[in-house]
Amino acid sequence: MSLIVMKFGGSSVGTAERMNRVAQRIIDKKLQGDRVVVVVSAMGDTTDDLIEKANEINDNPPSREMDMLLTTGEQISVALLSMAIHKLGHEARSYTGWQAGIVTEEVHAKARISDISPDRIFASLDQGNIVIVAGFQGMTEGGEITTLGRGGSDTTAVAMAAAIKADVCEIYTDVDGIYSTDPRVVKCARKLNEISYDEMLELAHLGAAVLHPRAVEYAKHYNVNLVVRSSFTNNEGTLVREAAEMEQGVVVRGIASDKNVARISVLGVEDQPGVLAKIFGAQADNGIDVDIIVQSGVQGGKADFSFTVSLADRQRALDVLAGIKAEVPYREATYEEGLVKVSIVGAGMVSNPGVAAKMFEAISGVGVSIKMVSTSEIKVSCVISAEPVQEVVRALHTAYGLDTADTAYVGGPQDRR
Amino acid sequence: MSLIVMKFGGSSVGTAERMNRVAQRIIDKKLQGDRVVVVVSAMGDTTDDLIEKANEINDNPPSREMDMLLTTGEQISVALLSMAIHKLGHEARSYTGWQAGIVTEEVHAKARISDISPDRIFASLDQGNIVIVAGFQGMTEGGEITTLGRGGSDTTAVAMAAAIKADVCEIYTDVDGIYSTDPRVVKCARKLNEISYDEMLELAHLGAAVLHPRAVEYAKHYNVNLVVRSSFTNNEGTLVREAAEMEQGVVVRGIASDKNVARISVLGVEDQPGVLAKIFGAQADNGIDVDIIVQSGVQGGKADFSFTVSLADRQRALDVLAGIKAEVPYREATYEEGLVKVSIVGAGMVSNPGVAAKMFEAISGVGVSIKMVSTSEIKVSCVISAEPVQEVVRALHTAYGLDTADTAYVGGPQDRR
Repeated sequence: MSLIVMKFGGSSVGTAERMNRVAQRIIDKKLQGDRVVVVVSAMGDTTDDLIEKANEINDNPPSREMDMLLTTGEQISVALLSMAIHKLGHEARSYTGWQAGIVTEEVHAKARISDISPDRIFASLDQGNIVIVAGFQGMTEGGEITTLGRGGSDTTAVAMAAAIKADVCEIYTDVDGIYSTDPRVVKCARKLNEISYDEMLELAHLGAAVLHPRAVEYAKHYNVNLVVRSSFTNNEGTLVREAAEMEQGVVVRGIASDKNVARISVLGVEDQPGVLAKIFGAQADNGIDVDIIVQSGVQGGKADFSFTVSLADRQRALDVLAGIKAEVPYREATYEEGLVKVSIVGAGMVSNPGVAAKMFEAISGVGVSIKMVSTSEIKVSCVISAEPVQEVVRALHTAYGLDTADTAYVGGPQDRR
Repeated sequence: MSLIVMKFGGSSVGTAERMNRVAQRIIDKKLQGDRVVVVVSAMGDTTDDLIEKANEINDNPPSREMDMLLTTGEQISVALLSMAIHKLGHEARSYTGWQAGIVTEEVHAKARISDISPDRIFASLDQGNIVIVAGFQGMTEGGEITTLGRGGSDTTAVAMAAAIKADVCEIYTDVDGIYSTDPRVVKCARKLNEISYDEMLELAHLGAAVLHPRAVEYAKHYNVNLVVRSSFTNNEGTLVREAAEMEQGVVVRGIASDKNVARISVLGVEDQPGVLAKIFGAQADNGIDVDIIVQSGVQGGKADFSFTVSLADRQRALDVLAGIKAEVPYREATYEEGLVKVSIVGAGMVSNPGVAAKMFEAISGVGVSIKMVSTSEIKVSCVISAEPVQEVVRALHTAYGLDTADTAYVGGPQDRR
């Protein structure tokens, strides 16, 4: 008998019919003899509808009240899913985040889970119930309702799995696993049977939307076995765990591309000690995430830098630079859009020299020039012009021997919450 | 500086525009220097929409899960109302039932409030906030979410007013007070300035939908000053309190009529001791509320009874009678519909003989025969044929000197939750 956490996203429970299908799927698991805790997101467009309602009344609502509002979405889901299970003749009990013992930091809109007291969950399981927990929400020590922000339901599922020491945490979504690259771009993308936390983390950060990075971090930290699988098929999914099995000859596990990237260039900066610290300290102080940083050579005591930020932060990054110009003199600051960051990820590359070189070769092979490069132990990223990205990803996929004929991809927009 | 509870029903906050109007009204109160606790129902049709969603999935959902589902309606209201107040530049905090310290019995769908711990409400008031509490809901000692059933938000408001020792509990609704009778029936119905708890209780039970009887009971028990007034006008409402001021010569305060009545007749019952106890004990055991009971004379050792029940309970009441026929033999049981119960209510009738006689006279004056009569200290009810009820109510209204030219009635469907 296993203890299993099953997480279903909003599109999986978007209609009464889908809700019933999910209920049956949960019951099947229970009938196998497993103890089941289910985590659910808000149905379909519920969250967007609530946000719209709020904006009708206040275009800048307090985040405390937004949390109060939005958490009703998941509360509706858990109640209805429990009703669907009862209708099919099985016992279920739904719980809000606070009822499930999920304690968070004293922050609204993007709280982190600080503790889970699973006594009530265990008591309910012991009574033979299927336990259904509202994702995305928790309560502070002071009894305030909070939400976990983007990817929050994934995080709830993983944190709950860690707290109850579940054998596995299954994330049901509308794709049937983690792919070597986006199957909408590369037809012969292969579904991975296993992937390590670190690899998944890189892929998640690099724009593979199936799992939220925070949930993966949590899984890594608590060593939770994560499975990503389809809520529409019975196909085996992808297992995310500490030491993923290495397939013969596979050095690169996956290829990701991220269009949400703008390059800021700072030209003619006085080459003095502490300049970099001042520039990037100021960006960090303003909450701007800087990704790749490149410094070109120094000429005549002046240096050129460039760095990437998300598109949304572009103007703010420039404003921050303008604000420190008196302190850090430079000639000019510019930005460039229409870029894409292409990355190869794989734990195998640590011990395989020449992996980066092969990447540069493949990219130049399709006539594209590389604007920036960044490397880590298990990742190489190149910033290139966005236009030929599909061709580049396909070339890399082939170059690293990832192509396969087995294309079991189930399409549809991906489910992030 | 007064401490005031303001309760707004679902239709008062049914749209963003109405929500804003209510927000302004609350702020006006606060600007007078009062400390304000607001209780709100679910917006407009929210509750019906949620019930429909549930029924799509399960036509007989567990009441625990219905409570989980329906309480989201009020949670949405309080969050949005708080946002509306913030938008107008004032501080507000919304609270669910459990956050507001409302503890109920361990019963779903119609729990009674067993305790309120108002510490958090006081702390929030002390911080200068307008406090907004979700009506209709609470939590059991064991942390289960419950609802209070029909009229629940009125009850929340009154119970909260009792717990925080508020100076007054104002119930805002879509009529501007309690009327001597339904102003849609009798054009010259008069708005009452004051009414006693007992009178209000009788009127509420008799179908005057403005206040729920349970809320009135609660107000009487804790001696809460209740005011019923319009959320759309600034007219003074009706004050409900222990000893209402007697207007000169007014013996009867109000006239109510209730069409939700069926008469069951049991004919040829063996006249033995304990027969009545058996018949009505069996009805009570089956959860059937019996209202008026009349026993006509005994002839040849056989008695005839008749009693009234609500229309919905009619068939079940007959089934219960059929079930005990072996134990309590009778010749025949029949029922009659198309009836109405007309009642006059007034604390003044205790000391005024002839009040009932005047009622019978007025009814027979319009050519209507009386089928059943029931009296209490402050009430006389007659069951008559439903057809001429408007004429009867008008005649009674005139007979007791209640007519007035001042018809300030604001129409619209009444708000019960």
